[in-house]
Amino acid sequence: MLLRIDRLQTELPPPSEPDPEGAAGVQELLGGKFGEMSSWLNYTFQSFNFRSRQGARPFYDLLCSIGTEEFGHVELVSATINTMLTDPAEAGGGRAPDSALASLKGVGNPHHILAGGRSALPQNSQGRPWNGDYVFSSGDLVEDLTHNFFLETGARNNKLKVYEMVEHPAARALTGYLLVRGGVHQVAYARALERLTGADMMDLFPSPRIPTNKIPECRPHLERKEHLKLYRFSDEAFQEVRAIFNGPHPETGEELVVAEVPHPVGAPAHDLPPQQDVFTPNYAPEEIAEIAQMLRKKAGLPDEPTGEVSDESQSLFSSLLRKVRA
Amino acid sequence: MLLRIDRLQTELPPPSEPDPEGAAGVQELLGGKFGEMSSWLNYTFQSFNFRSRQGARPFYDLLCSIGTEEFGHVELVSATINTMLTDPAEAGGGRAPDSALASLKGVGNPHHILAGGRSALPQNSQGRPWNGDYVFSSGDLVEDLTHNFFLETGARNNKLKVYEMVEHPAARALTGYLLVRGGVHQVAYARALERLTGADMMDLFPSPRIPTNKIPECRPHLERKEHLKLYRFSDEAFQEVRAIFNGPHPETGEELVVAEVPHPVGAPAHDLPPQQDVFTPNYAPEEIAEIAQMLRKKAGLPDEPTGEVSDESQSLFSSLLRKVRA
Amino acid sequence: MLLRIDRLQTELPPPSEPDPEGAAGVQELLGGKFGEMSSWLNYTFQSFNFRSRQGARPFYDLLCSIGTEEFGHVELVSATINTMLTDPAEAGGGRAPDSALASLKGVGNPHHILAGGRSALPQNSQGRPWNGDYVFSSGDLVEDLTHNFFLETGARNNKLKVYEMVEHPAARALTGYLLVRGGVHQVAYARALERLTGADMMDLFPSPRIPTNKIPECRPHLERKEHLKLYRFSDEAFQEVRAIFNGPHPETGEELVVAEVPHPVGAPAHDLPPQQDVFTPNYAPEEIAEIAQMLRKKAGLPDEPTGEVSDESQSLFSSLLRKVRA
Amino acid sequence: MLLRIDRLQTELPPPSEPDPEGAAGVQELLGGKFGEMSSWLNYTFQSFNFRSRQGARPFYDLLCSIGTEEFGHVELVSATINTMLTDPAEAGGGRAPDSALASLKGVGNPHHILAGGRSALPQNSQGRPWNGDYVFSSGDLVEDLTHNFFLETGARNNKLKVYEMVEHPAARALTGYLLVRGGVHQVAYARALERLTGADMMDLFPSPRIPTNKIPECRPHLERKEHLKLYRFSDEAFQEVRAIFNGPHPETGEELVVAEVPHPVGAPAHDLPPQQDVFTPNYAPEEIAEIAQMLRKKAGLPDEPTGEVSDESQSLFSSLLRKVRA
Amino acid sequence: MLLRIDRLQTELPPPSEPDPEGAAGVQELLGGKFGEMSSWLNYTFQSFNFRSRQGARPFYDLLCSIGTEEFGHVELVSATINTMLTDPAEAGGGRAPDSALASLKGVGNPHHILAGGRSALPQNSQGRPWNGDYVFSSGDLVEDLTHNFFLETGARNNKLKVYEMVEHPAARALTGYLLVRGGVHQVAYARALERLTGADMMDLFPSPRIPTNKIPECRPHLERKEHLKLYRFSDEAFQEVRAIFNGPHPETGEELVVAEVPHPVGAPAHDLPPQQDVFTPNYAPEEIAEIAQMLRKKAGLPDEPTGEVSDESQSLFSSLLRKVRA
Amino acid sequence: MLLRIDRLQTELPPPSEPDPEGAAGVQELLGGKFGEMSSWLNYTFQSFNFRSRQGARPFYDLLCSIGTEEFGHVELVSATINTMLTDPAEAGGGRAPDSALASLKGVGNPHHILAGGRSALPQNSQGRPWNGDYVFSSGDLVEDLTHNFFLETGARNNKLKVYEMVEHPAARALTGYLLVRGGVHQVAYARALERLTGADMMDLFPSPRIPTNKIPECRPHLERKEHLKLYRFSDEAFQEVRAIFNGPHPETGEELVVAEVPHPVGAPAHDLPPQQDVFTPNYAPEEIAEIAQMLRKKAGLPDEPTGEVSDESQSLFSSLLRKVRA
Repeated sequence: MLLRIDRLQTELPPPSEPDPEGAAGVQELLGGKFGEMSSWLNYTFQSFNFRSRQGARPFYDLLCSIGTEEFGHVELVSATINTMLTDPAEAGGGRAPDSALASLKGVGNPHHILAGGRSALPQNSQGRPWNGDYVFSSGDLVEDLTHNFFLETGARNNKLKVYEMVEHPAARALTGYLLVRGGVHQVAYARALERLTGADMMDLFPSPRIPTNKIPECRPHLERKEHLKLYRFSDEAFQEVRAIFNGPHPETGEELVVAEVPHPVGAPAHDLPPQQDVFTPNYAPEEIAEIAQMLRKKAGLPDEPTGEVSDESQSLFSSLLRKVRA
Repeated sequence: MLLRIDRLQTELPPPSEPDPEGAAGVQELLGGKFGEMSSWLNYTFQSFNFRSRQGARPFYDLLCSIGTEEFGHVELVSATINTMLTDPAEAGGGRAPDSALASLKGVGNPHHILAGGRSALPQNSQGRPWNGDYVFSSGDLVEDLTHNFFLETGARNNKLKVYEMVEHPAARALTGYLLVRGGVHQVAYARALERLTGADMMDLFPSPRIPTNKIPECRPHLERKEHLKLYRFSDEAFQEVRAIFNGPHPETGEELVVAEVPHPVGAPAHDLPPQQDVFTPNYAPEEIAEIAQMLRKKAGLPDEPTGEVSDESQSLFSSLLRKVRA
Repeated sequence: MLLRIDRLQTELPPPSEPDPEGAAGVQELLGGKFGEMSSWLNYTFQSFNFRSRQGARPFYDLLCSIGTEEFGHVELVSATINTMLTDPAEAGGGRAPDSALASLKGVGNPHHILAGGRSALPQNSQGRPWNGDYVFSSGDLVEDLTHNFFLETGARNNKLKVYEMVEHPAARALTGYLLVRGGVHQVAYARALERLTGADMMDLFPSPRIPTNKIPECRPHLERKEHLKLYRFSDEAFQEVRAIFNGPHPETGEELVVAEVPHPVGAPAHDLPPQQDVFTPNYAPEEIAEIAQMLRKKAGLPDEPTGEVSDESQSLFSSLLRKVRA
Repeated sequence: MLLRIDRLQTELPPPSEPDPEGAAGVQELLGGKFGEMSSWLNYTFQSFNFRSRQGARPFYDLLCSIGTEEFGHVELVSATINTMLTDPAEAGGGRAPDSALASLKGVGNPHHILAGGRSALPQNSQGRPWNGDYVFSSGDLVEDLTHNFFLETGARNNKLKVYEMVEHPAARALTGYLLVRGGVHQVAYARALERLTGADMMDLFPSPRIPTNKIPECRPHLERKEHLKLYRFSDEAFQEVRAIFNGPHPETGEELVVAEVPHPVGAPAHDLPPQQDVFTPNYAPEEIAEIAQMLRKKAGLPDEPTGEVSDESQSLFSSLLRKVRA
Repeated sequence: MLLRIDRLQTELPPPSEPDPEGAAGVQELLGGKFGEMSSWLNYTFQSFNFRSRQGARPFYDLLCSIGTEEFGHVELVSATINTMLTDPAEAGGGRAPDSALASLKGVGNPHHILAGGRSALPQNSQGRPWNGDYVFSSGDLVEDLTHNFFLETGARNNKLKVYEMVEHPAARALTGYLLVRGGVHQVAYARALERLTGADMMDLFPSPRIPTNKIPECRPHLERKEHLKLYRFSDEAFQEVRAIFNGPHPETGEELVVAEVPHPVGAPAHDLPPQQDVFTPNYAPEEIAEIAQMLRKKAGLPDEPTGEVSDESQSLFSSLLRKVRA
Repeated sequence: MLLRIDRLQTELPPPSEPDPEGAAGVQELLGGKFGEMSSWLNYTFQSFNFRSRQGARPFYDLLCSIGTEEFGHVELVSATINTMLTDPAEAGGGRAPDSALASLKGVGNPHHILAGGRSALPQNSQGRPWNGDYVFSSGDLVEDLTHNFFLETGARNNKLKVYEMVEHPAARALTGYLLVRGGVHQVAYARALERLTGADMMDLFPSPRIPTNKIPECRPHLERKEHLKLYRFSDEAFQEVRAIFNGPHPETGEELVVAEVPHPVGAPAHDLPPQQDVFTPNYAPEEIAEIAQMLRKKAGLPDEPTGEVSDESQSLFSSLLRKVRA
């Protein structure tokens, strides 16, 4: 089972200029064949289906650790898309239906508006839904690892191209981070294959040949050595990944390490504002806020919400709250 | 982001007589339109896409808590299917390819063998893959909650029918548990709708009209009051669910409560044995065990694997280990 | 727009021995590429999209007439499947959940039980859903008619094979009727093509070479000359079909006619009994009956339901009603 | 079985400026998960599969009445899309193939041109085909009604958003009408649930919170009290809907009524002109007109086509006819 | 089995101005329901499944001959799309990732970039993958031929519309050629049906009514009498097509002939240049060239590559080679 | 473009006892994600999309050679399925429709009968159609080769399991052959990757760990050294494969070679007999034979069909022919 921590794995910029066409492209990293839902569910199903766990513990622990990190990537891509679809000018509520969406006709993925209310969906860049055929779980360990190495390779290809296609700051922050972390997973699966079979896959790196150190949005993560670290994403379990994830990084020669903490500190998410043209969270969001406040009071909860959001969002909310109360 | 705990939410029986036809049916609870992947990903995407989190915090916290529990259900259904597909007679390895799979020709879901190596896949009972069209995330809170109430209703329908159709002890342990826990989620969404709108949905229960107290496999969970408890599935976050999840249970009148612990204690999984006829984890699983042991040693890990599996599995492994060493 | 008449186009036998495997096969005639949903929606969409209706009125009227008849075929195939899935032994209600469905594990289409509650679904014989790609509507009249002639040819192929595969009396009554009526539509489209282009398609009949006069279940319909008649399926509209549908039948040389009445008399449906193992219409169907009776009374409706069902069903219901009242 | 009336349920404006991007968006209301094909086929399949019709007659009659109305909605959405795709400048014929479609490259749904010949298809706003997985028919009456209430809620969401996105007069006339009629169906299913279980769903309205009385295109229908009326869509059957559809409207408190006439009067459709760039109905539409005229004559039909189209279309056709004859 | 000849069936122009929106449209001719993959795989599967080959040899030979030609059409459409996606300005390599793809955001099929690296994919004009449901293979010869005649009719419709929509010289060269060759196949299947049944389908031509002689890009092929010739596409087999493919062409009355040579001479393909923004064939294409050169040397191959490409490409390559060597 | 040779790549046994359940399983090797259609179309599309062919000629030649061989595998799997579906008892014709297919109700893939007329279809073992999402063609050479190595690995897994599951002699002959030939392709792609990057993949073999030399049906092919040979499948082209395909076989150390002949000699196919219960090739196959004979005569073809089939089939046909003539 899982526990959820209400923080993103890395920081994203707040909403600025909406970019619905860019958001449609970023969906490939969410629900595409090589998107994060695929990584997440491939490794997670392989872990569910893993036989002889005690006999092959380090490999099981590796699949669990990486798989759990991938959930955070899905969350991060979704937050990016939502940021790109947010129109600060629509943050109010209560207006009668008009032509507010006319400028979005024929632009981007129509389901972002019609189905999602300006938000992310489990679809690819063509608007086709993610599906279970994207999961490979043969149970044969060498095959599964070969698949995973290939999957990470294809995923890096997609991340690079989205980087080149979409200039929105949220998309760039996202792809910069994912290129670094995806690189770690690719190395980890190659290392697992090498340990298991004796093959030497060092020279396959980097594949595709992405010079991450020339990408400005990758650099801060490289500087924090995020390209060398595997997190276990469990308070106690999955200690045995270090039997696999060690030795030199194939590109830089630096030593690979298992992080001492179970997960990166991360950052709180922005609390994205209501969007009146798509009725989210409602025609009259301030009414929901009032009801919530009343329910919270009745339940003995403190006046200010207990959840954590970005500082910026928090001050915006506090001023809204003051207005509602006034 | 998430942390993973390497335990199942409830105990399952160990493999016994394989039931591939039953396993094919249980897939509906995994990858069907109303299966656990759907619950999981619906609530999780709704939480990703939730706008005005501070303004509607209790509702956000509810979606996160329930969504995270659903992951554990996906894990549990997968473990059930894997148990039902395990043939204890195939637990060895190293035999030359023969007709060992002939008795499975035309029986159950062929992908359980050909794609999955006797294991679970993100498909429904017809072998069709789960897909992202099963996710509804409009961003309009009342609509999303209406959907979720309906989804839980349909899910209970499926659980009941699988209960009636599949007698394998693992399937029965599973459906007994899920009927109780799914009931909690159905109540929670009805309560959220009532709180938000003023509607009175008490008389819609139970829907479908399942007398859980007459189902032997539900009873132990009812006795432990699992039908009244919501877990937050987070160490710290999602405290505000108690602003919604309270008042009388619509069927029994007992008081609903938010559990003090973040998650149920659960139980360690069985370590399912290798299956030579499908080459999982390999043609020669004991070789993998040897390699793993060598890697573990090199990494300074203790002699016995550090991961937790059921006691029964652990003793089976220890005796295997002794044999390998001898 | 449409009006609905609550009668089937032809009589079907009542439920007898259930035949879930046969029912799964009959689904091809409902939701397969050449099933009745395809005929219905192809001709109906072509009629929606028909340009220059006044200029090509007889052709428009033909599409509308045949398309509307096809709805009745969809209804008829669904009734057949429901009949074949009905288990008279499950007609009661109120029993606690048990293993009543165990005998259906691994038998037929699992969605007939899990999704449909022993009833028909828009799927083919493999359990795959009907989809809009099966509709061809190019707007070019010659092409659309060529398609329709081909579609009817493929549909007859499927009907013949289902006839040979499924011996259940309801399936045989169905395929006997459909082979005759489908033959009329095939002739009608050939005639339309001939009228429009000057081609001579007489020698293409019969295609496939089915000797309907040797099929016992076709004969009564042939004797009533149903192979020669086109119905308009409208009280007033579509009078101009007779500009196309005339001349000799390509197989028998008899004269084709447009029926004077708008539709066949048909027969009332059987009122299929509740099925307790799948909770349809509920755990306790007699409670629904009581509620309905109370609502009917309040609305000033007569004591006995006003709707028409088969005589056999009506007497079964009346005796049930007497029991409920007692 | 069905009879077809060759009129639309409400009047639409004639073709004006083409809007292919808008037409692509309107497809969501036709072939989307919450489009009219879904409403139509959900209620219709539920009626096919309804067990114990005499025991629960008012509920059966409700499904049949609403389901049959939905067909008219499918027809109406299709007519809207066809209107929006019609280019009056292409109404001739006989020109050699040139670059007439170049301005449509990359614009809207390419299948509107390549597959449909400037017309509607069973697809959603992303160009994905409608499919049978959108149909829910469990046979459990409470569940089916819960589903239907949810489906209508989601459908209103989509209609509202299409209203806001697409300003073409045909799209606005359509959504104005559908918002009013869909509202009736949503109320009807809530009422049915309330009658059957005792729940009180009044406060769930309106959901989504659409102020229809502020939408100019809804107002004429509200003034004719179309938001209060249920039609039976059958000459004789389905009389018992009035046992359910009564009491106050949840938003206005006005009394709900079952219409005395079986269906609205409606309006004749526009006879959309040929489009030479997509060869509909042919390269040389006037030749088809000649052939039709000759066939009509031979069959003893009157000189002028007997079918009804809008007055405007009729005069256009008459002048065309005069030209052909001249 | 097959042998491959490394030439295209007809000449295409080299890359010029990229046209990604046009390329997205041309995909319909590749992976659409009526695209060349469909023709290819329909006739090829029908040939695999052909029973009684000796008894019906001329018909078998016809399917094999046409099916094998269709592969060349698939190749040709792919080459066209690739040509249209090639940006001569991106022909270098080695640049650090930047925003080079920004101008393609929201333009055309996103998979052309993200999945295909500026190249063709088995998808239609909406980006939906070709699928096996597009194959009809009933085994009943009359039905299969009826299908094939219809398929060719629909395919010509699509080719014509793509001609009108896409003005890029490669697209025009393609559609001009395919309209002529597809016409031959349509005639061939009609002739086969006539021979087998006695029907007279001459008057169905042309369908759709395309005046190919008025299309400039068709004319050179008409002048070379390509509309009259069937190739066997086998060195020795399929001699018996001439028992079917003979008699007058339905439009021109000229005599149909089986070509004396097994296949058209065709033309070598252009060797499309690397595209640095999508990393094809790599970040640093000249490194691959060096490795290839080294491997070739070691294997005793001549200095210049032995494969045939267009003269234009060959000189471009030679100058590149000189630079690499310098 | 392609030429077709009307022979299979290896010999298959003639029809014997039908095995429809086995045939349904073998479909995975045809239309599954790792089936032969996937191998064929992956390599073929990669070859279509290959940029810088002269610069990377040996790699282009490799993709073309292997891709073209895969077509023959698709043909071989189809022939196997058709053999397994053939019922010698149904080889006649002309019987009135009866219950001849009743024994196939609920057995195997229903489309084998209803759609295919006892023959192969582009579907997987679950009856789901092959689709274009199974094709990976990134244009980045290292990635494409990594994919292909993985694809061959997964394909071998499936072949092995089908071997173990299906004992029918045709299935065994097939899988024995494919395991050997697929092994060659897997080695070839590994070698290409090694040549291109310097990685050492020798120790990844065999993967999965299949001891082909212990499989009786592999042995004859191993003895003929088929595991060491690459064919070019072109009379003249693709000579440069030998720059890659050389060096020791990773399992046996024997030297890899490029065959001197372009393709294996192969064997003529069996001419599978008509099947009257599915109307293939018709209700009255002898009538088709007569028509064909008449057409052949008219065209001046020799009395005996010119095509090659197995000796066994040829004598069966000759005796049939004599009967027809008598």
